[in-house]
Amino acid sequence: MFIPMLMAQCSEKQGEKWLPLCENLIVIGTYAQTELGHGTFVRGLETTATYDPQTEQFIINSPTLTSTKWWPGNLGKTTNHAVVLAQLYTGGKCHGIHAFIVQHRDMETHQPLPGVEVGDIGPKFGYEAVDNGFLRYHNVRIPRDNMLMRYSEVTKDGRYIRKANEKLTYGTMVFVRSAIVSTAAKNLGEACTIAIRYSAVRRQSEMKPGEPEPQVLDYQTQQHKLFPLLATSYAYWFAGRSMRETYLDIQGQIMAGDFKRLPELHALSAGLKAMSTWATNEGIETCRLSCGGHGYSHASGLPKIYVDATPACTYEGENTVMMLQTARYLMKACGQAAQGNELPGFVAYLNQKGVDRCMIGDDLSLVSLVSAYQHRARRLIGKAALQMKAHMERGQPQEVAWNLASVQLVHCAKAHVQCYVLKNFVDSIEQYGHHEDVARVLTQLCQLFAVDGILNNAGDFLQGGFMSYDQLDNMTAKLLDLLAAIRPNAVALVDAFDFSDHLLQSVLGRYDGNVYENMLEWAKSSPLNDTQVHDSYYQYMQPFLKEMHKSKL
Amino acid sequence: MFIPMLMAQCSEKQGEKWLPLCENLIVIGTYAQTELGHGTFVRGLETTATYDPQTEQFIINSPTLTSTKWWPGNLGKTTNHAVVLAQLYTGGKCHGIHAFIVQHRDMETHQPLPGVEVGDIGPKFGYEAVDNGFLRYHNVRIPRDNMLMRYSEVTKDGRYIRKANEKLTYGTMVFVRSAIVSTAAKNLGEACTIAIRYSAVRRQSEMKPGEPEPQVLDYQTQQHKLFPLLATSYAYWFAGRSMRETYLDIQGQIMAGDFKRLPELHALSAGLKAMSTWATNEGIETCRLSCGGHGYSHASGLPKIYVDATPACTYEGENTVMMLQTARYLMKACGQAAQGNELPGFVAYLNQKGVDRCMIGDDLSLVSLVSAYQHRARRLIGKAALQMKAHMERGQPQEVAWNLASVQLVHCAKAHVQCYVLKNFVDSIEQYGHHEDVARVLTQLCQLFAVDGILNNAGDFLQGGFMSYDQLDNMTAKLLDLLAAIRPNAVALVDAFDFSDHLLQSVLGRYDGNVYENMLEWAKSSPLNDTQVHDSYYQYMQPFLKEMHKSKL
Repeated sequence: MFIPMLMAQCSEKQGEKWLPLCENLIVIGTYAQTELGHGTFVRGLETTATYDPQTEQFIINSPTLTSTKWWPGNLGKTTNHAVVLAQLYTGGKCHGIHAFIVQHRDMETHQPLPGVEVGDIGPKFGYEAVDNGFLRYHNVRIPRDNMLMRYSEVTKDGRYIRKANEKLTYGTMVFVRSAIVSTAAKNLGEACTIAIRYSAVRRQSEMKPGEPEPQVLDYQTQQHKLFPLLATSYAYWFAGRSMRETYLDIQGQIMAGDFKRLPELHALSAGLKAMSTWATNEGIETCRLSCGGHGYSHASGLPKIYVDATPACTYEGENTVMMLQTARYLMKACGQAAQGNELPGFVAYLNQKGVDRCMIGDDLSLVSLVSAYQHRARRLIGKAALQMKAHMERGQPQEVAWNLASVQLVHCAKAHVQCYVLKNFVDSIEQYGHHEDVARVLTQLCQLFAVDGILNNAGDFLQGGFMSYDQLDNMTAKLLDLLAAIRPNAVALVDAFDFSDHLLQSVLGRYDGNVYENMLEWAKSSPLNDTQVHDSYYQYMQPFLKEMHKSKL
Repeated sequence: MFIPMLMAQCSEKQGEKWLPLCENLIVIGTYAQTELGHGTFVRGLETTATYDPQTEQFIINSPTLTSTKWWPGNLGKTTNHAVVLAQLYTGGKCHGIHAFIVQHRDMETHQPLPGVEVGDIGPKFGYEAVDNGFLRYHNVRIPRDNMLMRYSEVTKDGRYIRKANEKLTYGTMVFVRSAIVSTAAKNLGEACTIAIRYSAVRRQSEMKPGEPEPQVLDYQTQQHKLFPLLATSYAYWFAGRSMRETYLDIQGQIMAGDFKRLPELHALSAGLKAMSTWATNEGIETCRLSCGGHGYSHASGLPKIYVDATPACTYEGENTVMMLQTARYLMKACGQAAQGNELPGFVAYLNQKGVDRCMIGDDLSLVSLVSAYQHRARRLIGKAALQMKAHMERGQPQEVAWNLASVQLVHCAKAHVQCYVLKNFVDSIEQYGHHEDVARVLTQLCQLFAVDGILNNAGDFLQGGFMSYDQLDNMTAKLLDLLAAIRPNAVALVDAFDFSDHLLQSVLGRYDGNVYENMLEWAKSSPLNDTQVHDSYYQYMQPFLKEMHKSKL
């Protein structure tokens, strides 16, 4: 993150100085934003950079315990420089968060510089191999030039000048989030690949007395665990891809200072980041548990996928905060729609009236499914807005009203994101489903994604009589039909991800299906099996047992 | 598990021989049930014990790769004996699964005995310190006396005699499962303690401009994540306790051969084991994620609670299989009710007609909540039974019909268990809530448990017009009211668990709330901080950087 953040925030001249130093591995850097006391709420960071016009230097300080920089990757033991976010003070006034290049270790000896405390933050859930560090500054002085000055500047005599529009950085955030969505979809796809392949190898219990044990993938309950996750993985893969493409489409406009489409894209990307990483987080564990005991073994590869994927729920913006960012935009859009203004792309459906009654029939037409999701999102967004209004009418300040409605705000943001993901899935079938068979199977996955979502949120769809009780009952029947329809293609649908055995690192999820012989081989290679009797026996057990027997004589 | 299984299955004479050997640590044993190819489906185990009347010995074999014993604790490197489950053959006939004491390591040298392959199964998700092993037998001979003969016997000349009723072992299963439910509740309580205490220490973001940052526990979204889990922890704690008490109450009857109440208790215990461990599994991770970045650090204590708790979803009966056991009993009960038979204790509500309309009003009376849950369970159980019937009428054999209805069967079992847990929560308030204030706050928790469950399964309650749309809207309003009502007591409610700091091993969840200074202290104690510059710098980084610079000159 050091080089991207440097490039995003430095002036041209600064780039010319620092980038060659990075390239030649003289500067090895990290990006130091998060502190012990503050994460997603960047404005609350406490590290200070105070300008001293006498020496034309900034003085960097960690004035409180909670201002200790915490978590930056490679910070503890590896790097010698950091892009540090700090509150900028000049002329006694705080100008908010800015970025500075600060050196923390000597280039020759690698020892921490005077005034710097730096070290490892201790063991974590996964990420064992990452050198996450802490860092404290005590009056560390850096040249004025080390402030990254693309968006604002402090002059030699200490005047603060704001230069460019910071909205540019929102574009970068959209891009980073689209990558997180795609990675989440990939991680969930990996877990599905392992669980579905293994479920086709594993045989268990009796379905019919006297017949061979069936593949566990033939159990309806197993299909019900795994196939909706498979559909979800496809759905978010398409969503991540579309978001990236949309961003690249409008990148030119953004660079030219036209930020028209950025707010809706930025808002959607926040919610998509949250929903995709949550779904992946839960989904990987469902896949792992669906593999029975062997899912716990590292031979399955699943624990590693989980601990690698779960931090995405928190980094680059904590998920609930992200959902509320999406909700904030939806509340604005809802207000604009109420005033008769036309809304852009992803929220245009809020302008439409839609159908009064759910039109989903036996054919599960994609149009009717999207329309039901739009109805639900429209209703929930409107309801959250009314809730906000009601609290304010009862005399609550806006901020308090926001908090009092926040559970409903998160819920409506969820409905909006799911609506987008479904609509985008449908559009992607148009785009990628040129072959009839591919289109058919993608349509089944898309229907499963939609139907499963309806059943998990049935109250939202029934509310107000939109969906009838019979229609809901039919959803259960359709779900079960879809599971049976997808079963013959399930292994092919994960093979289509084309993850190599080398990437999956899973004995359970091997492409060739030779699970059991390789489980035993894998176990035998455990270092504990290097000897028949482990050293600990001679060192601890044998003397202890002898002592015990003596004492009992 | 070695000694309990030995005691449960041995004859009196065998107990007299083996227990002193265990007590004197001459025999160190494990319980070897699970194999590479079979877990919960015990009948499918493949290890064989073939009786040889010539020598009056059993010959133990692992005839297939998948018959390799896999997972038993302390098996790989520590123990010298095992209680082994194997298919018993005598006179050419298989008599099913029986238990045998088999020695696998020499008592003097600790070397594996001839014909035995034994070792470690490799690293796992959590349980790193547990010596889980594998074991294969090649014609290992044991004396006839090593078959555990409480329930059946093989005579010297090889005749097979069934002796006692195996239903006795069901009682033990109920007892073990009640312990799992209580442990699950405890684990979830630990995670809630850490997350709720930390949320009262952590301050973040702005609620009102210019005011100090609020405790994150004041955010509605944070309350919505944590308080339903707190209520769930209390609910399952009461459930585990009641199940244990019920078992102890009827233990005398069981020992006297009266198994009347055992089936309903056994069926309930299966579903409770599954529901409590699933809820705990998900809940711990929700708690961890609610702590932001610090939840990932082992300083939080949460990752360890998770990896310790999650195996309970799989051991002692895989959860989905457990749910289907509950469902099987419910289908029988439903059939008996249809024939006008009176049903016992936990399923007696299936005999009742109940109310047609949901009676939940503004007071959220506990009676009306229980009655709504009973309605839902009754309807879903009846519907699953109809589904089964419909499949069979279409010509499907019963086993296939069972599989085709299994998603609905699991769902109705879930409704039954939740109904029991709620009813038992209500009863426990009667039992423990002698003090008015305690009763009031327990009632709020109980209402939250019920209302949250209704909102998460709203379709079930709306279906057929049982609950009205207005009532459902009111549930959301009540949920938010309850979160606010519980907030002032939340920390006290976790303190009431009385988990010591020593037990929790959590810097975030410290009783004294001094989180940040102790986070820094904890980090500084990381071995990586023993030196300012880590050895790896001199060994790898410095030479690499020098080489790089040279090559660029």
